[in-house]
Amino acid sequence: MSYFRDNIDAMTGYVPGEQPQAGKFIKLNTNENPYPASAAATQAIATVLQTGLSRYPDPMAEAFRRRAAELHRVAPEWILCGNGSDDLLTVVTRAMVGEGGLIRAPYPSYVLYRHLADIQGAQFEEIPYRPDWSLDDSFADANDNLRLVLLPNPNSPSGTFSSPERIGAIASRLSCPLLVDEAYVDFADEDCVPLVTQHENVVVTRSLSKSYALAGLRFGYVIAQPHLISGLTKVKDSYNCDSLSIAAATAAIDDQSWRADNRRSILATRDRLTASLRDLGFEVPDSHANFVWATHGAASAKSLYEELKDRRILVRYMNFDRWGEGLRITVGSDDQVDACLSMLKTLLK
Amino acid sequence: MSYFRDNIDAMTGYVPGEQPQAGKFIKLNTNENPYPASAAATQAIATVLQTGLSRYPDPMAEAFRRRAAELHRVAPEWILCGNGSDDLLTVVTRAMVGEGGLIRAPYPSYVLYRHLADIQGAQFEEIPYRPDWSLDDSFADANDNLRLVLLPNPNSPSGTFSSPERIGAIASRLSCPLLVDEAYVDFADEDCVPLVTQHENVVVTRSLSKSYALAGLRFGYVIAQPHLISGLTKVKDSYNCDSLSIAAATAAIDDQSWRADNRRSILATRDRLTASLRDLGFEVPDSHANFVWATHGAASAKSLYEELKDRRILVRYMNFDRWGEGLRITVGSDDQVDACLSMLKTLLK
Repeated sequence: MSYFRDNIDAMTGYVPGEQPQAGKFIKLNTNENPYPASAAATQAIATVLQTGLSRYPDPMAEAFRRRAAELHRVAPEWILCGNGSDDLLTVVTRAMVGEGGLIRAPYPSYVLYRHLADIQGAQFEEIPYRPDWSLDDSFADANDNLRLVLLPNPNSPSGTFSSPERIGAIASRLSCPLLVDEAYVDFADEDCVPLVTQHENVVVTRSLSKSYALAGLRFGYVIAQPHLISGLTKVKDSYNCDSLSIAAATAAIDDQSWRADNRRSILATRDRLTASLRDLGFEVPDSHANFVWATHGAASAKSLYEELKDRRILVRYMNFDRWGEGLRITVGSDDQVDACLSMLKTLLK
Repeated sequence: MSYFRDNIDAMTGYVPGEQPQAGKFIKLNTNENPYPASAAATQAIATVLQTGLSRYPDPMAEAFRRRAAELHRVAPEWILCGNGSDDLLTVVTRAMVGEGGLIRAPYPSYVLYRHLADIQGAQFEEIPYRPDWSLDDSFADANDNLRLVLLPNPNSPSGTFSSPERIGAIASRLSCPLLVDEAYVDFADEDCVPLVTQHENVVVTRSLSKSYALAGLRFGYVIAQPHLISGLTKVKDSYNCDSLSIAAATAAIDDQSWRADNRRSILATRDRLTASLRDLGFEVPDSHANFVWATHGAASAKSLYEELKDRRILVRYMNFDRWGEGLRITVGSDDQVDACLSMLKTLLK
């Protein structure tokens, strides 16, 4: 007899993007920011080290909540912090979806969502995007068993964006919570935080991994109405964020001029990467994130991925059943992107 | 209609010990180590900051696994790291206990266990300790629905210890996993890691919060046979430990002479605290942890807690239904413990 639940035995684990711990790679596979984080974040960590780490952290990370609340023009009771936004996706599914409950997500999107459903012993329904990566109307269809709808916006792997108007209309039709996963939204032009005040079923998650260059820190947060935050608080681990990450994250979001400058650099490189890939014959939907999704009518994405990897350039190869394969390429520094482009040019000759 | 599962709506959240963020308290309520962590831990953090935090951490924290494996004389595949041992308790319950499954724990013990059962929608069975804090034989009784047995050793709030022989005999009788929560074991004389090789159903959890003075860092680990580690790995968040904590934790367990010195100090103070409390009329079971459990026949523990708090000395007041109330007092520095003792002496006059 297995000691694990049947749903755990039946599932395969989520495989995160390759994180080579040795050797030098040009790493364009997991959407990390190519630039160092705000110096304020590092300084905040040094300050914590002076008082030491022997005490437990603030369970609710109030310093961060207050600062994030100002940034988003809500009250601190609308914010909940997590050990990366993955922690918060986990907390939301555990709080809202029991065994046999239904989770809906668009397809193709963030591969982790299915695993979260599997761990809960929940059902998982994928609504395919239309060919132009817009949301199908059936995404908002009623279903008695539906407990949670997950929508990454911008979406991964496509980098495409659904307008807040469109998402608000979907939230109105749904009778369950709609979680808008805004891990990449700082690279877009709009966001869904205003929907949170208008719709009591909208939950927005944010990450400091990408737009604040702090993937190594593990920090994210939820923005939602207080009735939702208080239920989620019951489910999170009591000390889910450590003292160093709370201090660094608070300092990082306090440095909005760093974020604006960084965003400007990434967007300029993204434009250039997109245009160059199109010149090489790739189809690339307009990206609102810090990566692009590139498919090629003639060349095999798998082969390109492998050839690049042999030359120590890592991009993300993804193959979606009933949809097709492609390369998800992070917007790195100009040098990194140039190295990738010039290698692709050689390979496609 | 609520957006939460019925079991979540029905539960009250776990309330961690008070963590005053402002004001100066002598803090003897959450079993933090009164001394600063090994300088090697701080140094390791400084080193990570030099390379930056923009990259994701190693998902499996292999550097820590290798070092912990050496320390415990097992292979790295026997180790799984977590964001504090609470994260690992969460992962184990999610992996092993579905809705309606039964979790067993002794009573009184770590209050969090019931909450983990509530979050899973599981049943929870408490087996009272015998009056001398030894485990009742029924703790190992068979039950078809039993999925997981949780045993803190040393126990909280009592600080008492069950021998590895006794626990091994219980593991042999159980047909489900037995998790031995060794958060405090570094302050005892023996531990249950040897049982892990002998019993394929024994899981040991460790924390760096207490004996390594790193509560602010959030780092813990599991020691179990590889067939269990691989199932648990499917359930943990992919990047559950951050780059700073992995580096600091690896350096901390590498500095065993710091730990031995620290342990010696804590144990000397614990002996003195225990003897002085007994002189004041408290009943104090022999502690194998970095706290003591003090009950008093004549004085109200609640009043003592409140009077101490008014004087900015925080201890943990606990009141266990069908068992009684008491004060759980952390073994702080000599000065902290003296301040607490002298105030208690005044209050009990």
